[in-house]
Amino acid sequence: MSKLNVTQKLIKDHLLEGEMTPGKEIGIKIDQALLQDATGTLVQLELEAMGLDKAKTEVAVQYVDHNLLQTDFKNADDHAFLLSASQRFGIWYSRPGNGVSHPVHMERFGKPGKTMVGSDSHTPAAGSLGMLAIGTGGLDVAAAIAGQPYFVKMPQVMGVKLTGKMPDWVSAKDVILEMLRRYDVKGGVGKVIEYYGPGLKELSAMDRHVIANMGAELGATTTVFPSDEITKKFLKSQGREEDWTELLADEGCSYDLEDEIVLDDLIPLIALPTSPGNVVPVSEVAGKKIGQVVIGSSANPGIRDFWTAGAIVAGKATREEVSFDINPTSRQMIQNLIANKGFENLIAAGARFHQSGCMGCIGMGQAPASDSISLRTMPRNFPSRSGTEDDQVHLCSPETAAASALTGEITDPRDLEKLYDMKYPKYEYPEKEIINTMMLVKPPEDGSHVELQKGPNIKSLPYIDPLHDCYDVPVLLKMGDNISTDEILRAGAEVLPFRSNLPEISKFSYSVIDHSFYDRAQQAKIDFGGHIVVAKDNYAQGSSREHAALAPKFLGQVAVIANSYARIAWQNLVNFGILPLEFIDLADYDKIEQGDLVSFKNLQEDVRNRNNIKVLIEKEETGAEPIEIETKHSMSDRQIQVLLKGGIINEFKEQLKNKDVHAVKENTVTGNERKQVK
Amino acid sequence: MSKLNVTQKLIKDHLLEGEMTPGKEIGIKIDQALLQDATGTLVQLELEAMGLDKAKTEVAVQYVDHNLLQTDFKNADDHAFLLSASQRFGIWYSRPGNGVSHPVHMERFGKPGKTMVGSDSHTPAAGSLGMLAIGTGGLDVAAAIAGQPYFVKMPQVMGVKLTGKMPDWVSAKDVILEMLRRYDVKGGVGKVIEYYGPGLKELSAMDRHVIANMGAELGATTTVFPSDEITKKFLKSQGREEDWTELLADEGCSYDLEDEIVLDDLIPLIALPTSPGNVVPVSEVAGKKIGQVVIGSSANPGIRDFWTAGAIVAGKATREEVSFDINPTSRQMIQNLIANKGFENLIAAGARFHQSGCMGCIGMGQAPASDSISLRTMPRNFPSRSGTEDDQVHLCSPETAAASALTGEITDPRDLEKLYDMKYPKYEYPEKEIINTMMLVKPPEDGSHVELQKGPNIKSLPYIDPLHDCYDVPVLLKMGDNISTDEILRAGAEVLPFRSNLPEISKFSYSVIDHSFYDRAQQAKIDFGGHIVVAKDNYAQGSSREHAALAPKFLGQVAVIANSYARIAWQNLVNFGILPLEFIDLADYDKIEQGDLVSFKNLQEDVRNRNNIKVLIEKEETGAEPIEIETKHSMSDRQIQVLLKGGIINEFKEQLKNKDVHAVKENTVTGNERKQVK
Repeated sequence: MSKLNVTQKLIKDHLLEGEMTPGKEIGIKIDQALLQDATGTLVQLELEAMGLDKAKTEVAVQYVDHNLLQTDFKNADDHAFLLSASQRFGIWYSRPGNGVSHPVHMERFGKPGKTMVGSDSHTPAAGSLGMLAIGTGGLDVAAAIAGQPYFVKMPQVMGVKLTGKMPDWVSAKDVILEMLRRYDVKGGVGKVIEYYGPGLKELSAMDRHVIANMGAELGATTTVFPSDEITKKFLKSQGREEDWTELLADEGCSYDLEDEIVLDDLIPLIALPTSPGNVVPVSEVAGKKIGQVVIGSSANPGIRDFWTAGAIVAGKATREEVSFDINPTSRQMIQNLIANKGFENLIAAGARFHQSGCMGCIGMGQAPASDSISLRTMPRNFPSRSGTEDDQVHLCSPETAAASALTGEITDPRDLEKLYDMKYPKYEYPEKEIINTMMLVKPPEDGSHVELQKGPNIKSLPYIDPLHDCYDVPVLLKMGDNISTDEILRAGAEVLPFRSNLPEISKFSYSVIDHSFYDRAQQAKIDFGGHIVVAKDNYAQGSSREHAALAPKFLGQVAVIANSYARIAWQNLVNFGILPLEFIDLADYDKIEQGDLVSFKNLQEDVRNRNNIKVLIEKEETGAEPIEIETKHSMSDRQIQVLLKGGIINEFKEQLKNKDVHAVKENTVTGNERKQVK
Repeated sequence: MSKLNVTQKLIKDHLLEGEMTPGKEIGIKIDQALLQDATGTLVQLELEAMGLDKAKTEVAVQYVDHNLLQTDFKNADDHAFLLSASQRFGIWYSRPGNGVSHPVHMERFGKPGKTMVGSDSHTPAAGSLGMLAIGTGGLDVAAAIAGQPYFVKMPQVMGVKLTGKMPDWVSAKDVILEMLRRYDVKGGVGKVIEYYGPGLKELSAMDRHVIANMGAELGATTTVFPSDEITKKFLKSQGREEDWTELLADEGCSYDLEDEIVLDDLIPLIALPTSPGNVVPVSEVAGKKIGQVVIGSSANPGIRDFWTAGAIVAGKATREEVSFDINPTSRQMIQNLIANKGFENLIAAGARFHQSGCMGCIGMGQAPASDSISLRTMPRNFPSRSGTEDDQVHLCSPETAAASALTGEITDPRDLEKLYDMKYPKYEYPEKEIINTMMLVKPPEDGSHVELQKGPNIKSLPYIDPLHDCYDVPVLLKMGDNISTDEILRAGAEVLPFRSNLPEISKFSYSVIDHSFYDRAQQAKIDFGGHIVVAKDNYAQGSSREHAALAPKFLGQVAVIANSYARIAWQNLVNFGILPLEFIDLADYDKIEQGDLVSFKNLQEDVRNRNNIKVLIEKEETGAEPIEIETKHSMSDRQIQVLLKGGIINEFKEQLKNKDVHAVKENTVTGNERKQVK
């Protein structure tokens, strides 16, 4: 492996542990960390619980872009908390309304050749600059900020060669939609998608962001672009030419998998409800009446995207029955959009111009009317994500969105040439953009004096017990296949404001499945000191939200027994000290029932030594004879240590205790330090 | 009364009924009508229930500025409904995000010498142009749109003479705050405030809007300014010079009450929590830490206000712990603010620039953090109105707000001269503003073919029974003094989305007082065909929301017996067919208890002839002997007719039936037609 692709170079440069064989766990050094507010409050509380003194990454940034609506005090309180915690722990703070995390990070902090973890699934967007950027659970991000390596299975690298020239009325969004058309939403699982080839020159850095960002919808671990002259031009336009380094694949390198996109062949595409993978040509659904168009989000954040939409609607009125919503990416982008008249074109044509942030992309307002089609340049159209049940969200390019806002129906933007005698407006990137860093608050050198501002809804994390040796606890819930994180801890406007309040949010645990769960768990905690739950295949699939582990843990969850687990959720269980057991004989699933009492003995030793773990099942309700079954776990050595200690937070605190605290304070991660993780 | 003030001239020109003696009911012809969305959905449903063909006012405009957040389908559905209903009934439609009703109306539709009713309490803002503009319940607005006169008690006219010159750092907001300092929130009740004198030339038309708008906080019926050269200049800048007519008070006219404000003596003022009347000099509370500044709303909507704030923060960063929210008045104003750089100044300094609308002024987002001070240029700071319980909202000028955003503490803007070596920035009004009318949708000449777009949350109004002659119904609730409309039907994010869904919103009737009310009322409807409630003094004080009458009516409310009523609420009861009875002997209040059964006999005749109305009280629960008490009503002849028919909607439908429908369709209100109202 002497000739490396970009992904391999990035990993090799940061490899602290393991070997680069696809499927094997590797530990990599993390240079940067990205937090957004909806997950960041918990990350900051975790940093507090860990007793962290100061962030060890080169750069960590707390963005506030998700919870901007503020219908009561909770969100504003969270903002004040995040500012204080960022100051306390040495983290940059991007003020509410300053902009969407991913593009702002790319403009102000992203650096070719660096690694990053982020507590947001679209973190891979930074791959546009030649970074290795991975979205993951909050505790993994907290650990990275605390200087720990990030552990992930070495992915396969899929090389996608871009050739040819981009046709008029087609843009980067159509490239990623083409990928989703080919591979659907699971086609990228276990893979890094790396783009290369002569067609790259057709894509500006922010165009690449569009593709890397929405690569998350392929299920990919991340997406990677090389760092080339276009990257340099971008960083120069941001006044950061000195941050550029070239990072290209070696001539003649290979990929684990290969594909090619001939750009000339691309046409405007659209993802139909209710999956980003449900892609068809726009022309196939053209003519359908629409009620809303939303332009913005991290999946189309570039000034080109807004300017082009503005140029399309310039001097015209969007249709009166269409809500034409514009979510500007950042404060800085608004300033640039004013300078190039894009802003005025949009406003004059009827735009509802919102504050900079994610807004409707995460269901924070902008819910479409019932029984109506909403066209969005956003990355996701999962059912009800918009806030409207039975919504009909379609995903498309800014060109398609703007064309449709003019006509009131889904419109192939190529038809504008005939309909309005319009030529395709081509954005000319300026040498230099207007830059605004005033709303990025730098942390102080020494933040130890800063007090955390905790409003009444912000509660510190509770202490989690190390794993006991014996438990006698009830089976509180028996579930089936494919239980999602939404069923374990649902999202939505009612629940989200409590994301920094574990006692409150835990009340919603499993509420979608069984409303009585919370009360029964509270009682079991008193009577038995905890509980377990049972599931079948693919337990806890879906989002990376760690509340789906932390909230049940708070209610005393000792273990889950399931046939199999979704990857991130399985990691989260371990991180929070919940034992993820697997049935050895799948038939045993039928032997255990809700209401049974289960006993574990000699648990610590069995877990440590990878012995089969015996579970004695007492049939409390029927009074039948007890049954014993055997289960196992498949944790790594590192994970075993974490679990025995009650999770990563305890693990980290123990490290702090066992060594010179000052050393931890001063050092960044090195090969030596990471050994202590094991 | 040969020499008239402006108010008297306006009333005299429109008088259809009654005489201009303060305290006596007059009926006036209405030229214009203003609807906003939060109350407008009900008004449009009322127009539907009335069977209206086409609006009879010269101009009626449906604005969408309140419910813009869209956390589910309901608000977007309402917007679609309002568009369709506006088209159906001949009403202009101002699209969501086009702007706040009052300033947009002033810019595009307001005309000196005209009358207007609006289903929003800040409708008096149009008095800035020499109009007589009154805020009132939705059904009164519907009636006006249907061509009926508006009935109100002839107010006293308070003449406020303005003299002298406005000092630097002081602006129109300080004028109305000075009025509130002098008269508090009830000082204007039963009065029209009319400004005159040489100081008027210090106030632009939009400055006058600030004063007229927030005159609502004095409890005034409305506020009136003359139409002079400044009015002309304003209309000219809006491209509507031809709509100007001069309207000045006669030399030597008199006022019922008089006062004077010497502008030179004004200083920056601020209203402390939690009343707009709680006014002190800014310097008295300077230095207090703040968490939020919000600039915008109909109480400071002028481009001068935003430009001045922008000039103050230009080139500086607002404090990082302060959320600096800007709510632009209208799309057109954003365009003008871009042209004069005010927009960039605000954005660059850290503004969260929101879509055009009321936003946090009616608690739609922007709730401040707990235990923190919010400075707002808005008209109201009633407790919790911001969405945060125990909020600390202060009301002030844009100058004070912007100065405080820079320092992070309440700051007298005059101190900026020392703090930042700043000269007071003075806005130069341009000859012509950029005008944008594209988002105002004109109704078709004939809208009879338009189908109303009713989403699943929009329910037509139910038929209301005419008054029966006899009832035997239970007393479902006995209340005390000063019961507010918030207790009868509360506002807030949970309830507001149901404002166009009477069956749903009625579930919240009296829920603040008694959660069981809804269930008990439903049962009483089945068992007895209805119910009554009993209260003491000042029943249903507070807002004009007609849901506080309509929802109880929907649940079968036949009558209220109280010692006294708040004015608008009392009108609303009659409008919706609820009999507002008064105790004759106040001691009888103690004789009637919740749970008693009351009998009315011969009700129609007694109501018609103003006989005392006998109420037989049967003590169901104790089995004690029945008691008979006597009550009365104080409805006008017109109101008696309305009540007997079951409310204004039935009354109007009967009119339609009894005459040539075509005539109703064609005619506007005349002296003859209004006679049929009686």
